[in-house]
Amino acid sequence: MIVDISKKVLIVGLGLLGGSYAKGLKRFGFHISAITKDQSSIDYAIKENIIDEGSVELDKRIIGDADIVIFALYPHTFVEWIEQNQGLLKSGALITDVTGVKGSIVYKIQEILRSDVEFIPAHPMAGREVSGVENSTDNMFFGANYIVTPTEKNTPDAIKNCVELGRLLGFSNVEVLSPEEHDEMIGFLSQLTHCIAVSLMTCNDKENMEKFTGDSFRDLTRIARINDLMWSELFVANKSALLEQMDLFLNKFNELKGMIEAEDIDGMRAMMRHSTRRRALFDKK
Amino acid sequence: MIVDISKKVLIVGLGLLGGSYAKGLKRFGFHISAITKDQSSIDYAIKENIIDEGSVELDKRIIGDADIVIFALYPHTFVEWIEQNQGLLKSGALITDVTGVKGSIVYKIQEILRSDVEFIPAHPMAGREVSGVENSTDNMFFGANYIVTPTEKNTPDAIKNCVELGRLLGFSNVEVLSPEEHDEMIGFLSQLTHCIAVSLMTCNDKENMEKFTGDSFRDLTRIARINDLMWSELFVANKSALLEQMDLFLNKFNELKGMIEAEDIDGMRAMMRHSTRRRALFDKK
Repeated sequence: MIVDISKKVLIVGLGLLGGSYAKGLKRFGFHISAITKDQSSIDYAIKENIIDEGSVELDKRIIGDADIVIFALYPHTFVEWIEQNQGLLKSGALITDVTGVKGSIVYKIQEILRSDVEFIPAHPMAGREVSGVENSTDNMFFGANYIVTPTEKNTPDAIKNCVELGRLLGFSNVEVLSPEEHDEMIGFLSQLTHCIAVSLMTCNDKENMEKFTGDSFRDLTRIARINDLMWSELFVANKSALLEQMDLFLNKFNELKGMIEAEDIDGMRAMMRHSTRRRALFDKK
Repeated sequence: MIVDISKKVLIVGLGLLGGSYAKGLKRFGFHISAITKDQSSIDYAIKENIIDEGSVELDKRIIGDADIVIFALYPHTFVEWIEQNQGLLKSGALITDVTGVKGSIVYKIQEILRSDVEFIPAHPMAGREVSGVENSTDNMFFGANYIVTPTEKNTPDAIKNCVELGRLLGFSNVEVLSPEEHDEMIGFLSQLTHCIAVSLMTCNDKENMEKFTGDSFRDLTRIARINDLMWSELFVANKSALLEQMDLFLNKFNELKGMIEAEDIDGMRAMMRHSTRRRALFDKK
């Protein structure tokens, strides 16, 4: 094993994801500490033996002891933390994150970060519809993807360690992508789908539609119940990749609209057959 | 009961829906006959006691005997049948249908139909992902909506009989809407969602995206596996109502896109809160 379990792990932001990381790593015997904003989260995690110690303050000893630091914060909070507190990190520490957007965060952090600390970015593609350390679970990662997004500034060792971390946490699939490939993929598969769901849900406020709803409309709008604070920040943080995906979708949607206007049955059928073929690739294996 | 079970019922088009109507009505003791294109469907339905008699020919006696005729055909096939064969219908017969679009069919049929036969349109909002009389089932309608869409030409008696037919078949909710209200509702809840799913599924052909797919994308594209023959015809048959819904969606999607471009966090959050509130109405009760 590349990751040495004698290393001390610090989790900054002990919520659903941070807590699940803690549980997943505790199984192997790592020493786990946490810095987070609510004392109740620390108390709960110590009581449940998820962490060994923790603080709601910027505890210099806890932060300075950590060999591996995992930031499980909103994007802008992560950047602010590094700007203000990176002096507290141990020389030689490896830091990583869980941020769902990469290009707009990764280069900024790597540019401002001390040269004796390395930031290797990662995105655990897992979540639940609940939040907080109380809902964390070390089996949330089984069946899910973990994406490491290194840049030219990263060392081969840091990449290997981060990949190993994903495997230790129990992710079924660990991949290495560039920040740009990651952002395109997330822009398409996750953010565009949320943009579509929200637009569909709000575009026609006619009353009593719910009386006639079938499963198609319900499926397309399940994710229209959305955490507005988080998603508005993620959309802006991935602005250019997301806008590109929105344009690709708009082009296709307008093409279909043109075919309906022109009553171009052959064109529509060709597009639908393409759709049917391509959808088959996305069935659960 | 308004519908008299001594009346003879003819089903034209003995597939999944036609067969399910036959099964649903047979329970009450109606005499059921069928005209359909495959002899195997007739043979199966007689063997299974779903119908009393049937033919693949335009059997004058069978058609001329029927008091209630249910057309379970594709839209253009239904119109052609009436144009070519309405002379065979019994004077005083009541005819109804299962067509998923109304405005473009209902007025045309009522205009060309003999004055001694009444057409009362209906849309059973039920279906399965399989077809054929062999897959028909008389419990397909429980939990589903049945919409009667009369025009000014319809008599109160015909409307009552058609509503009663929906209740006999076991639909959980029977509603009366104008053809225009029906087409707007279907354009929004069903057709627009299919247009979105097909556009999303075909707008980015990048390889290996399926490796990273989560449930959001899968939910939004489940219906992108689509019967191209049927849906291209339904889209054209509901062209004006569908284009209106597509424009409503495009306006909202472009509004969201503008807010992302302008980094208008407050605007996005307001739209997402609207979306979250409205989605709650559509939860299964």
